Amino acid sequence: MNNSQLEKIISQELQTVQKEYSFIEKDIDIKPLEVAQYIDHTLLKPTATVQDIKLLCRQAKENNFFSVCVNSAYVSLAKEELRSCKVKVATVIGFPLGVCDSSVKVYETQSALDDGADEFDMVINVGMLKSLDYEYVYREIKDIVEQADKKTVKVIIETCYLTREEKIAACVLSKLAGAHFVKTSTGFGTGGATMEDVSLMKFVVGEDVKVKASGGIKDYNTAKKMIACGAQRLGASAGIKIIKGESSEEKY
Amino acid sequence: MNNSQLEKIISQELQTVQKEYSFIEKDIDIKPLEVAQYIDHTLLKPTATVQDIKLLCRQAKENNFFSVCVNSAYVSLAKEELRSCKVKVATVIGFPLGVCDSSVKVYETQSALDDGADEFDMVINVGMLKSLDYEYVYREIKDIVEQADKKTVKVIIETCYLTREEKIAACVLSKLAGAHFVKTSTGFGTGGATMEDVSLMKFVVGEDVKVKASGGIKDYNTAKKMIACGAQRLGASAGIKIIKGESSEEKY
Repeated sequence: MNNSQLEKIISQELQTVQKEYSFIEKDIDIKPLEVAQYIDHTLLKPTATVQDIKLLCRQAKENNFFSVCVNSAYVSLAKEELRSCKVKVATVIGFPLGVCDSSVKVYETQSALDDGADEFDMVINVGMLKSLDYEYVYREIKDIVEQADKKTVKVIIETCYLTREEKIAACVLSKLAGAHFVKTSTGFGTGGATMEDVSLMKFVVGEDVKVKASGGIKDYNTAKKMIACGAQRLGASAGIKIIKGESSEEKY
Repeated sequence: MNNSQLEKIISQELQTVQKEYSFIEKDIDIKPLEVAQYIDHTLLKPTATVQDIKLLCRQAKENNFFSVCVNSAYVSLAKEELRSCKVKVATVIGFPLGVCDSSVKVYETQSALDDGADEFDMVINVGMLKSLDYEYVYREIKDIVEQADKKTVKVIIETCYLTREEKIAACVLSKLAGAHFVKTSTGFGTGGATMEDVSLMKFVVGEDVKVKASGGIKDYNTAKKMIACGAQRLGASAGIKIIKGESSEEKY
């Protein structure tokens, strides 16, 4: 699809949101332990050592998290640590700025796929979105979805840098390009997930695409609210505290 | 070289530093305008638009900066904007976390080289350094130096996360692997260049390798002190203010 076709679809969606959507805070009845299967147990800090990654994997197994989420240098290691268990290995693509060349993101996807990654959390090029080059953003997501060979691709739109219109545009482009999830945040930007963003994103992508809330989810109550607002996955480094019903001060 | 050979060389260098080095604050007589040729005029924010990159290039031409430094998605654009002028195009590799897979960094180098990049500022895998896998860090730098085909490679060691011993180790590994520069910071970590780090890094790498100071260099006085301490290149978004002798509050 070219830029003017994409502009038209985005403009229609903006009107739909304007007419049909309003934010309502929600709550849900879910026990702390039931949250475990929502969690991508995440360690993306540049200082994480091999021992730290091994510990992350052990924790994911013991606590029944959905996956571990690690940088692409550690996919092989995590895959090895998690062999013969059902915890998935998620990795990040073009992380956290999203402004490496598109071909680099596609290559990173292929490389991580070869290393055994099950899920791919890619960051869009926010600058290109702000430059209104929708075709660039759409094409990049599509290329990664194709490279990922039917495995789950999550599109990090980095809400903290986006206007409401840009959030809607990014969700529309992700959906059109075949992404499986839209995801709020890298955790390395100026802000993380909010109930308002999760709710808006869920409205825009509809039933066929899921929403992952990430960045700043440090306790059970926040996790619960994100799920109530439509999140079907949570990215967090505080997973253990979350499923114990505790709060956390850690920044991931 | 394998890990035990590298360990031995690093350990010798630690002893040399211990015996022969101490920090002395220095100053230098250099006019604001003369600082221009030290500056990589830098814009790496994920929100930078196409227009922002074009403006950066125009500023670099007008102010006689050494280069522009942009993310790899914008190398082609910067090269086009700077055609038929002597301002170089520098880009970043594995930026800013340095924890994508080694093969991804090598691919990004090749891709940026094809797009016309003249210089490559790569980030080491700090976690692997902290895991004492010196061979990994050395090999990665060496692979990128080879891929860059004799063009300038700067190794960002991200001093803010390193102990004194780790800073020395990272400089030794960079030098052994054939890097042309060691560079203090990404500007996205918890701290930027300090006089102490620049001075220590210059001592360790000696005459054959240069030092680039980056992160938090926002005014002429700071720039001057970094040069006095041994920096032969400066990464800054505040270049225009620096060469006017002004200070700046911008963070890049």
